[in-house]
Amino acid sequence: MSAVLVVNSGSSSLKYQLIEMTGEQVLASGLIERIGEDVGVVNHRNVEADPDNPIVSEEPIKNHVDAFAVMLARFAEHGPSMEEHPVLAVGHRVVHGGKRFFEATRITDLVKINIQDLAELAPLHNPANLDGIVAAERAFPSVPHVAIFDTAFHATLPEKAYRYAIDRELADRHRVRRYGFHGTSHQYVSRAAAEFLGKDVTELNQIILHLGNGASATAVRGGESVDTSMGFTPLEGLVMGTRSGDVDPAVLVHLQRVAGLSAADIDTLLNRKSGLLGLAGAADMRDLEARAAEGDEIAITALDVYNHRLRGYVGKYYVDLGRVDTIVFTAGVGENSAPVRARALAGLERLGIKIDPTRNEGRGGPKIISTDDSEVTVLVVPTNEELEIARQTLAAIEG
Amino acid sequence: MSAVLVVNSGSSSLKYQLIEMTGEQVLASGLIERIGEDVGVVNHRNVEADPDNPIVSEEPIKNHVDAFAVMLARFAEHGPSMEEHPVLAVGHRVVHGGKRFFEATRITDLVKINIQDLAELAPLHNPANLDGIVAAERAFPSVPHVAIFDTAFHATLPEKAYRYAIDRELADRHRVRRYGFHGTSHQYVSRAAAEFLGKDVTELNQIILHLGNGASATAVRGGESVDTSMGFTPLEGLVMGTRSGDVDPAVLVHLQRVAGLSAADIDTLLNRKSGLLGLAGAADMRDLEARAAEGDEIAITALDVYNHRLRGYVGKYYVDLGRVDTIVFTAGVGENSAPVRARALAGLERLGIKIDPTRNEGRGGPKIISTDDSEVTVLVVPTNEELEIARQTLAAIEG
Ligand SMILES: Nc1ncnc2c1ncn2[C@@H]1O[C@H](COP(=O)(O)OP(=O)(O)O)[C@@H](O)[C@H]1O
Ligand SMILES: Nc1ncnc2c1ncn2[C@@H]1O[C@H](COP(=O)(O)OP(=O)(O)O)[C@@H](O)[C@H]1O
Repeated sequence: MSAVLVVNSGSSSLKYQLIEMTGEQVLASGLIERIGEDVGVVNHRNVEADPDNPIVSEEPIKNHVDAFAVMLARFAEHGPSMEEHPVLAVGHRVVHGGKRFFEATRITDLVKINIQDLAELAPLHNPANLDGIVAAERAFPSVPHVAIFDTAFHATLPEKAYRYAIDRELADRHRVRRYGFHGTSHQYVSRAAAEFLGKDVTELNQIILHLGNGASATAVRGGESVDTSMGFTPLEGLVMGTRSGDVDPAVLVHLQRVAGLSAADIDTLLNRKSGLLGLAGAADMRDLEARAAEGDEIAITALDVYNHRLRGYVGKYYVDLGRVDTIVFTAGVGENSAPVRARALAGLERLGIKIDPTRNEGRGGPKIISTDDSEVTVLVVPTNEELEIARQTLAAIEG
Repeated sequence: MSAVLVVNSGSSSLKYQLIEMTGEQVLASGLIERIGEDVGVVNHRNVEADPDNPIVSEEPIKNHVDAFAVMLARFAEHGPSMEEHPVLAVGHRVVHGGKRFFEATRITDLVKINIQDLAELAPLHNPANLDGIVAAERAFPSVPHVAIFDTAFHATLPEKAYRYAIDRELADRHRVRRYGFHGTSHQYVSRAAAEFLGKDVTELNQIILHLGNGASATAVRGGESVDTSMGFTPLEGLVMGTRSGDVDPAVLVHLQRVAGLSAADIDTLLNRKSGLLGLAGAADMRDLEARAAEGDEIAITALDVYNHRLRGYVGKYYVDLGRVDTIVFTAGVGENSAPVRARALAGLERLGIKIDPTRNEGRGGPKIISTDDSEVTVLVVPTNEELEIARQTLAAIEG
């Protein structure tokens, strides 16, 4: 048996999954947080043996090298055994692949230099991803490491969709274009939806709505991303937990002028204190739905703004695709919130979209939530970025 | 007989029209440019007597007070006679009405203070508009002056459309919201389209595409603006002659960081050096179409980006309206460019939109350019902001 270790490293965190590829079974998963702080938190789950009881502990974790040492210690102590399930390869989530990386790529020194170079475009993410790679290479020196880029699925965007209407030369010099993110999820979900329907992904025009804490919409034609709502960074597009999504760029200039905010302040404001949090003081959709149910006007407005934006992207991509076969909801909100889904597609009978309220109830999937006579098939399909990363990792080392 | 003088004053320019309201006839029109420069340029046309021969002259024009004196001198010398056509009222275009002005408003001292106060939101436009008002009041002291706001038609936007997903308190404190512009044009055109079709505007769901140097799209439900593409400022939305329209707000932060641009530089960049000009070095649609026809790839891409954005808004508003009765093209590009119109709505048969290529040929209107069996009636309707201003001016002083 042979497994792939999937790694997602943030600046102060490390998420991992060990996946047995024969049956695509998750053997273990974990989350190490507060790396670099006084006390780190380690959460390890032996999914194979004891899925309901994570082992939680606290201890100082200096850096990502330490984090991998702790991870290996948990595996050794609580299982599953890495001898029984030898790690065949490590798959790393990397946020920004720029224009260089269109697909899963075996990590070499040159690849690492390129990931570092792309830090200019993703200053928060790429350096942290690289820290994880370097630490993982030390922990697993004799297996191949593969980078899976969050931007790669959007490498197929046509120029009309990726080019902003700003000075061409300046944009090219500073690598300003729409890259799109959540690519691994959009790729996984678009394929999983096709499979669930017993269709060939190349024959479907799809709109994928990834609604989590971060949120993005993608138009997928015949399996290829042709437009997506996140742009140069993950800030653009839909209303998210703490991100504004679309906003008149002149608002930034205005706030710098009248409120005395710096460019860095604005960055923090729009990425961390906006979205649902900025609108209503809570980033979590469950909180807002509970408050809205009690008649809280602020929460109701926040949901209205969220929904209005979302519907706008459905329309935008409908026109782009000309004909839509499926609309797919995924991620935390998309998989679990029937009211969000119902509102997003209400009143669109003219576009051949009819939701069945009973089918739409409840959580999880994959399932169809449109009526039998709905021209567009609407689905809920749980995303699984880790599995997609593991699959692509395997393909990259076999290919 | 009695006439309304329509005034549109910029920081260094003054545009005017004298309109006889009985038959809604333009009697005279003029443009005074380079106010405050060494040599000003005056262009006056006695439309009644000699429409094809404007009187052009050059002379220094210190300020807006001088400009009105020059204008009156041209009327006195070249006609039409203001004794035969006494000015009943002066209608002033004012760009920003904020949340205070929802309709044409008789100008008082308080109104002027409010227009000045709104300069924080429209620093380029409102002070210039106010200069024009003050000068016009001196030139026409005994008639009522009325302000017509470019934002007023969008006062009906619902909160879901006008609220950005940023910090609520900060937004409210600094008056950050979607205001929308080109309102006078959208209002005029939506009504003119209904009239042309012999329908009641309250019964129609319309998408108005105002495509000029500036460009904006508006969703009009039953005569009321319910969403519009320009936002806090006229920068947001469609690709324009020199404005970027939508862009990931993080691009601004990035360019400040890596290219060392100031907030003011960014403002200039996005408003004056972007759009078609930034993409292809020319802001004028005619230039781009000529170059594209010769196979110029840069021009073709610019038109693609322009068109892709435009189609996105058609889709967005289609979904917002749920059912669309008419789509109306107006302004310089919308009225004159058959290729832009054809591309904007190509391949949308699924949405009940079918353009008739023969009807679409040529310029001007009002005319229908969709096929008889197109569910959505597509029109070209020339805009006439001056006439709309004159009408609203008259209504305000009569009401
Ligand atoms: N039952 C539910 N109803 C509504 N929203 C839910 C529900 N369960 C989870 N969510 C939402 O899912 C979001 C997290 O989604 P997720 O995809 O895990 O985010 P991330 O982008 O962090 O991966 C949370 O903000 C939460 O509001
Ligand atoms: N025949 C034409 N074909 C294409 N574009 C045209 C044509 N005539 C005028 N235009 C375009 O109209 C634009 C000006 O539109 P207009 O509505 O006058 O702009 P403004 O926003 O300045 O009022 C110009 O940029 C020009 O490209």
